Amino acid sequence: MKVIELHESVTASNDHDADALRMQMKMDGTLLINLMSSPGSGKTTLLKATVSLMPDVHIAVMEADIASDVDAVTMEKNGAQSIQVHTDGMCHMDAGMTAEGLKHMDLRNTDLVFLENVGNLICPAEFDTGAGKNVMILSVPEGDDKPLKYPLMFSKADALVISKIDTKSYFDFSLEKCVERVKRLNPEIEIFPLSAKTGEGMSAWCQWLHAQIIAWQKGEQR
Amino acid sequence: MKVIELHESVTASNDHDADALRMQMKMDGTLLINLMSSPGSGKTTLLKATVSLMPDVHIAVMEADIASDVDAVTMEKNGAQSIQVHTDGMCHMDAGMTAEGLKHMDLRNTDLVFLENVGNLICPAEFDTGAGKNVMILSVPEGDDKPLKYPLMFSKADALVISKIDTKSYFDFSLEKCVERVKRLNPEIEIFPLSAKTGEGMSAWCQWLHAQIIAWQKGEQR
Repeated sequence: MKVIELHESVTASNDHDADALRMQMKMDGTLLINLMSSPGSGKTTLLKATVSLMPDVHIAVMEADIASDVDAVTMEKNGAQSIQVHTDGMCHMDAGMTAEGLKHMDLRNTDLVFLENVGNLICPAEFDTGAGKNVMILSVPEGDDKPLKYPLMFSKADALVISKIDTKSYFDFSLEKCVERVKRLNPEIEIFPLSAKTGEGMSAWCQWLHAQIIAWQKGEQR
Repeated sequence: MKVIELHESVTASNDHDADALRMQMKMDGTLLINLMSSPGSGKTTLLKATVSLMPDVHIAVMEADIASDVDAVTMEKNGAQSIQVHTDGMCHMDAGMTAEGLKHMDLRNTDLVFLENVGNLICPAEFDTGAGKNVMILSVPEGDDKPLKYPLMFSKADALVISKIDTKSYFDFSLEKCVERVKRLNPEIEIFPLSAKTGEGMSAWCQWLHAQIIAWQKGEQR
């Protein structure tokens, strides 16, 4: 398993780099999904469960962290091609860094690449990584008020996974209020309440992923 | 309850501003504690419980967020003087912003001010706010591997609160491993496993706070 040290891109325009990467991934027929959340919301656990539930899809994972390689080691043990990138202390990935990381992966025959962004609800929302879709996770223990406090990421995501839903009775979390707050910011967003631990809600999530890959490869989306 | 809009400081040196603020707070006999954590780790819940368990101490709270005023409203309902500051989208507070926020509070006869920093495990660790003590929270649902992935904040904190300890049996969290990882980064750190919900561990935390206030007012610390 590779560990790649990345540095902030020095190009003039992150948006330009992001569009170029997206176009390249489109031509390659590989969907890149940028997965964002707080630290500890269950990104790696979701990816582990997703990989095992979608054996027909070739999935690779780029783990971005400030330090350590624990997540990439976990993913590789689960049979997914995986690399670890370090962000040189930076709190987010940009498009140039993402493109650089992808160069170190063998993406022939890969349908879907997850970029597991740095755990942070703020900065990653400000940088287009070149992904075809942006997905964020909010875990039940974090609380249903997070859309009020971190509106940008909820506004930019194509889909929201509400994770650890099996712990809902333990925490004071209103799914109804949370969904209402999110939809007010982003009426088009798809929402998947689920538990990677119990499997509840995982089939709707995997079905959505299948549909996104098919649409991407058919060229129905940007 | 006031809501103050702040902007990034334009002074040459944040470290200089931080030292100046710390010296001023020292002369005033008011201890400023910078409280940092991920979103949803339970900062506000800890502060609510702390305020109600320390009726003899005059506590004020500055809530820093990108948007909303939910936390400041909660604190004010609990009887603590409280203001909400907005960071203009910024992912952390700096010393100039903290000093500006404090100007809007009446701190005569206040022993302890908590700055509830923006929910983020990365950027707040990079900026000295001028606080006398830095405290971070890690909640059990976030996982015991966080010291490996976000080492800087664990290295800089004077104390670590491990919150939501009542949920330990539900999550795969090893307190022993977590403490070992934290102590490797920061051998001097004080660690308080606790639950603001059940009250477990709260007395050790409050005792530590009492001791810090006394030491600060006596001038035994920087």
